[in-house]
Amino acid sequence: MLLLERIGTLVTPKPSSTKHREPPRACGKEMGEITLLRNAAVAIEGDTILEVGSSAMLEEKYPTAERIDCSGKTLLPGFVDSHTHLVFAGNRSNEFAMRLRGATYQEIYEAGGGIRSTMRSVREASLEEIVEKCRPLVQSAFAHGTTTIEVKSGYGLDTESEIKLLEAIRVLNREEEPTLVSTFLGAHAFPPEFANDRAGYVRLVIEEMIPEVAQRGLAEYCDVFTDEGYFTVEETEQIFAAAKEHGMKVRVHADELADVSAASMASRVKAVSADHLLMISEEGIADMKEGGVIATLLPGTAFYLNLPYAPARKLIEAGLPVALATDCNPGTNMCENMGMTLALACMGMRMTIEESITAATLNGAAALDRSDQIGQIAPGMKADLTLFAVPDYPDIVYHYGVNQVEMVVKNGKVAVNR
Amino acid sequence: MLLLERIGTLVTPKPSSTKHREPPRACGKEMGEITLLRNAAVAIEGDTILEVGSSAMLEEKYPTAERIDCSGKTLLPGFVDSHTHLVFAGNRSNEFAMRLRGATYQEIYEAGGGIRSTMRSVREASLEEIVEKCRPLVQSAFAHGTTTIEVKSGYGLDTESEIKLLEAIRVLNREEEPTLVSTFLGAHAFPPEFANDRAGYVRLVIEEMIPEVAQRGLAEYCDVFTDEGYFTVEETEQIFAAAKEHGMKVRVHADELADVSAASMASRVKAVSADHLLMISEEGIADMKEGGVIATLLPGTAFYLNLPYAPARKLIEAGLPVALATDCNPGTNMCENMGMTLALACMGMRMTIEESITAATLNGAAALDRSDQIGQIAPGMKADLTLFAVPDYPDIVYHYGVNQVEMVVKNGKVAVNR
Repeated sequence: MLLLERIGTLVTPKPSSTKHREPPRACGKEMGEITLLRNAAVAIEGDTILEVGSSAMLEEKYPTAERIDCSGKTLLPGFVDSHTHLVFAGNRSNEFAMRLRGATYQEIYEAGGGIRSTMRSVREASLEEIVEKCRPLVQSAFAHGTTTIEVKSGYGLDTESEIKLLEAIRVLNREEEPTLVSTFLGAHAFPPEFANDRAGYVRLVIEEMIPEVAQRGLAEYCDVFTDEGYFTVEETEQIFAAAKEHGMKVRVHADELADVSAASMASRVKAVSADHLLMISEEGIADMKEGGVIATLLPGTAFYLNLPYAPARKLIEAGLPVALATDCNPGTNMCENMGMTLALACMGMRMTIEESITAATLNGAAALDRSDQIGQIAPGMKADLTLFAVPDYPDIVYHYGVNQVEMVVKNGKVAVNR
Repeated sequence: MLLLERIGTLVTPKPSSTKHREPPRACGKEMGEITLLRNAAVAIEGDTILEVGSSAMLEEKYPTAERIDCSGKTLLPGFVDSHTHLVFAGNRSNEFAMRLRGATYQEIYEAGGGIRSTMRSVREASLEEIVEKCRPLVQSAFAHGTTTIEVKSGYGLDTESEIKLLEAIRVLNREEEPTLVSTFLGAHAFPPEFANDRAGYVRLVIEEMIPEVAQRGLAEYCDVFTDEGYFTVEETEQIFAAAKEHGMKVRVHADELADVSAASMASRVKAVSADHLLMISEEGIADMKEGGVIATLLPGTAFYLNLPYAPARKLIEAGLPVALATDCNPGTNMCENMGMTLALACMGMRMTIEESITAATLNGAAALDRSDQIGQIAPGMKADLTLFAVPDYPDIVYHYGVNQVEMVVKNGKVAVNR
């Protein structure tokens, strides 16, 4: 048994009482109602939290436990990063530098930039090269306090390369400490060889990729980039129907560039989460609320692209459960640090610190359909915990831009100790 | 002798040809014209850069030098953070959390918040307490690649407490590795005991504080917060006249909250740098250019306060030399990481990566009147260098929000090695 004792500040989010069919999540204003314990302790048996309470009480109750003194520090549930594309090949920093020097989209395209650049690199790379390239990113996310990471394919855009990316996720999940949740995103963009045959590519996704991915058991989720210039709502619904037939759950990139009613579609198809939502309509908000869809916001991407942020306050006022994720990817947000995401959510989208913590833990877990196992510090939950070297929880956001994580516990074991 | 060899990418800014009386700096668009060497080496003798060139050439020329392999990495001059308030006491994270929950300025004031909160903490703290509290911040700035840091007093607001803060800077400068440049900022705000006697406080600053600070040799610079609701241009000029009589150089907080023509005044009094400049007028820009004043921008503060950024592009187009600094302080930007400042400058203010590097090195050094000694990787310069674990310089900003610094060399010695 392991006892984290004398924890200066322990913070855990509080689930709303929700409809019976919904897993735990905090909705709207209730996201701000965190539970706060001072001088607390957490007793861990194996990979599970056994008990949470006052340090004096648990020290007496478990006198033989191995102890870690957490005095003057702040304990949170491990961050759940529910939207990333962090398995890829190549590097697009020069494209980013060009953009800042004023290059237009067309100029970057002509210089070989954009998603096709990553696609070419992925197609050329071996499975091993992709794994070795991305391993440090997974380790860095973990060192910044993230214990569960959703990772999407979507840079291969042919069957073999999409499988290769999903295999890389499987290898990294087995070899590295954070839990990786895999999502098939063959419908991320149209590859150049199908530029004039959209229907052909949608058929390839449905008839070849999805069955192959499912047969190999490589993806828990299917995702589609539903937006202007990308996949239509109709194409998305066809893809999702096939994915569900093959046992996958669905999640969706919705209404980032334009309002194409993807949020309403997300509710209709019972997506677990609809993500981005920069351009979401009032109707989209109402439909997502009705459908119990998690609204996953990715402020790093808006920051990176210098776009207006998603309407976080509006979504929270409307009572939606909001999650926060990094969107870590080589084209539009090269950042795997969830602490940075919280800072952007607070400074840029005006979420409160309490809301941002709930969004990055409990609601991130709900966005991965795992909030019965992770996202809270409570008996019976997995012991996935992050300890920050700060006396109180506001400091995590207040003192931003530096890594304040001191220790990460994963499955009940101390895994990062800086 | 030390040889940093096989440096993947070496970046150093390029000074503009300027008027004879001006120390090196890069003006306007020339900030973007960095010098780039691939597979380079730097030969260091004692605390000074002896030679910079191709790795093959210098390896042959200095066969007995101690060597450090920097292959696949990027070397920059150490960052110069030319505007901080990072010597203080207390903690204002709860005030920050209140503000995000919607508290008004009045409510925070009534809860004891604002600068008076830090002032009370500073007055109550001992010199040793202040030093121990701030030591980790200085160390963290250094670990993030900053080799020279300007630090201001300004939270004591009485003679004894201002002296205490400047003594703390002196102790930290002696004991810690980065160079600390000290600035007296008694005119940071009016303390409560002079709320109804502005002239009395200005007299105290001029007649008691400045002579005492000068007599003890505690400050290289005098700074004033010249803005609406703070010190007027007239009061500032009186204070600066006294400071100069006592041998201090001057720098100024200018036109942050409102345009009070502080930028023009900065030129008139020959300030080395005018800082913030969110509300600078066209006339202010023209006057600063004429006077050769460095425009120091602090995007972290705008980000933190959710204000529009300073007009960086306009200042650069106008030909001004722009520097970047953190403004690290407990009230309006609790961040000591210059890498974060570069990211905010690029994402938020649309500076190019090249401009941001020049602003954070050469022009930061110019803003501290030290650009003949630091801010470039060139023979004769101090060997203050930062090595990043990235293959090319755009990655430093592209992959933001995590610390990519692998090694810091200060005065020719390897001081941080992660």
